[in-house]
Amino acid sequence: MSQPAGRTILASTIAKQYVDEITSEVAKLPFKPKVVGFLGNSDPASKTYASWTGKTCESLGFEYELQEVDKYELEASIISANKDDNVHGIMVYFPVFGDKQDQYLQQLISPEKDVEGLNFMYYHNLYHNVRFLDSPTNEQKSILPCTPLAMVKILEYLGVYNKHLHYGNRLYGKKVLVVNRSEIVGRPLAALLANDGATVFSLDINNIQKFTRGDDLLMQRHKVTDLDSEEYSLEHVAPQCDVIITGVPSDKYKFPTELVSNGTVVINFLSCKNFEDAIKQKAGLYVPSIGKVTISMLLRNLLRLINNREIRKKNAENK
Amino acid sequence: MSQPAGRTILASTIAKQYVDEITSEVAKLPFKPKVVGFLGNSDPASKTYASWTGKTCESLGFEYELQEVDKYELEASIISANKDDNVHGIMVYFPVFGDKQDQYLQQLISPEKDVEGLNFMYYHNLYHNVRFLDSPTNEQKSILPCTPLAMVKILEYLGVYNKHLHYGNRLYGKKVLVVNRSEIVGRPLAALLANDGATVFSLDINNIQKFTRGDDLLMQRHKVTDLDSEEYSLEHVAPQCDVIITGVPSDKYKFPTELVSNGTVVINFLSCKNFEDAIKQKAGLYVPSIGKVTISMLLRNLLRLINNREIRKKNAENK
Repeated sequence: MSQPAGRTILASTIAKQYVDEITSEVAKLPFKPKVVGFLGNSDPASKTYASWTGKTCESLGFEYELQEVDKYELEASIISANKDDNVHGIMVYFPVFGDKQDQYLQQLISPEKDVEGLNFMYYHNLYHNVRFLDSPTNEQKSILPCTPLAMVKILEYLGVYNKHLHYGNRLYGKKVLVVNRSEIVGRPLAALLANDGATVFSLDINNIQKFTRGDDLLMQRHKVTDLDSEEYSLEHVAPQCDVIITGVPSDKYKFPTELVSNGTVVINFLSCKNFEDAIKQKAGLYVPSIGKVTISMLLRNLLRLINNREIRKKNAENK
Repeated sequence: MSQPAGRTILASTIAKQYVDEITSEVAKLPFKPKVVGFLGNSDPASKTYASWTGKTCESLGFEYELQEVDKYELEASIISANKDDNVHGIMVYFPVFGDKQDQYLQQLISPEKDVEGLNFMYYHNLYHNVRFLDSPTNEQKSILPCTPLAMVKILEYLGVYNKHLHYGNRLYGKKVLVVNRSEIVGRPLAALLANDGATVFSLDINNIQKFTRGDDLLMQRHKVTDLDSEEYSLEHVAPQCDVIITGVPSDKYKFPTELVSNGTVVINFLSCKNFEDAIKQKAGLYVPSIGKVTISMLLRNLLRLINNREIRKKNAENK
């Protein structure tokens, strides 16, 4: 095969500026922020992942404590960590029960310590483009789920966001295909990119939906349309897209290389490799994994949560 | 009409960094470079344009001399300026005779003083992607015709060139429509953008051609295909384009706004306004004129020509 015309960009390269920023911010704090990770399953892959997040936290100047707990103890452990003033961030390695109980446990984490940004309140703010927690004072910034946020930062780094357009509109004119419509990543990501001006095609096993900003700016939310006609088949949509993002949780799934136009920005966000190697001959910029950016966003969220806590303290004292 | 989602970007904003760079470079020279402009017609528009270029040259630290000459004296005047060591740059305001004689006069300007970069040698280098005048030493950089060069700098400024791609490939994946196929601007511009990785659709009154880099990298030149089928009508091609560039020398011609997709980068390079005002509701970034960038490139070319002259002098002394 000939030398690819495009380039592969590693997550570590993109994460570098955030790692530097976070390290310097943490060093300024009068205490060492502490993250607690709960491991409630015995899956070796989860353990490896937990150990990797732990090492990353520590290398950036955070304290990290991994608690391996019986799944029936997890609820009590979360409640206790919520109350512990020395714990600043909490994350749980899912799946635990592998059913709706996991969602209950997730939502049990106090929003003030939810470094992954998975609380319903944060999703609500994302869908409605609400950027602050304390309107109309607007001192405490809302946080965003870390994977969709990482994707925004990656697209900014790659120059897909155009800085000459107004803030909040920097994806105007861009067409993005997101292959995944999970509640955790795919759907919120599509909404986030549509809120910034993109036309987003969201593909799952059932159909294709189109997300646009919509005209309802008062409601501050995007608009979703089901696309059923032939004209909006994957074969028709994919080659038109400036960006293709995949997150299909199966190593067997491969996005059809022949539907990718030369020069497309291609991003794979799960650890499953959704593209054949031949994608490098087609992609303009190819980001094969994003984990290092995601964990940077998690720690950036933590710093924001700590900052919000300081603001609340100060305001309480002044009353 | 509602507030446009996109932005209008003025040429003066884009030119600023070049104006600053040029001003500081000129100040370092031990002499004041001199540009001579020849006006061989009595068209008031040419006179206005000549006076504007003169003022710009002077404001940036150059000496500018406008010579109004009878058209039959122009040949002798150019030859004399070619020989004059105190003249560093020569430009002629065309049309003079309005026929092929104008081309003869243009080519008569010494390539060493051809600030507009209109000599056949420079076009040859552009078409063949040749960047130096003195291969294999590669000390003296070739120059580019100033309007196509201005367009490249504008597209770089606007973020259409993606700096994460390898140099020489930064338009990979971009689709560009150029409405003008003149030998001075449209055709060389299409080739230049294709050499940088874009797919360029070049439209003139007769047909649409497609310029791509082609596979013949040894020949270092782009590939041109005539597109005659229905599939490549303007109606089909225009809405797919990331960038639409027009230079139709008529105030009556307006590019059909309805063929422009939301968020497209739109650039008008002649003084004739080829777009309706409604384009602002569609364009992502709209550059309504480019004159200030073009003249910056002319003066940048002049500095390069002076630099090449110094290199030749030094090499001659060392022999």
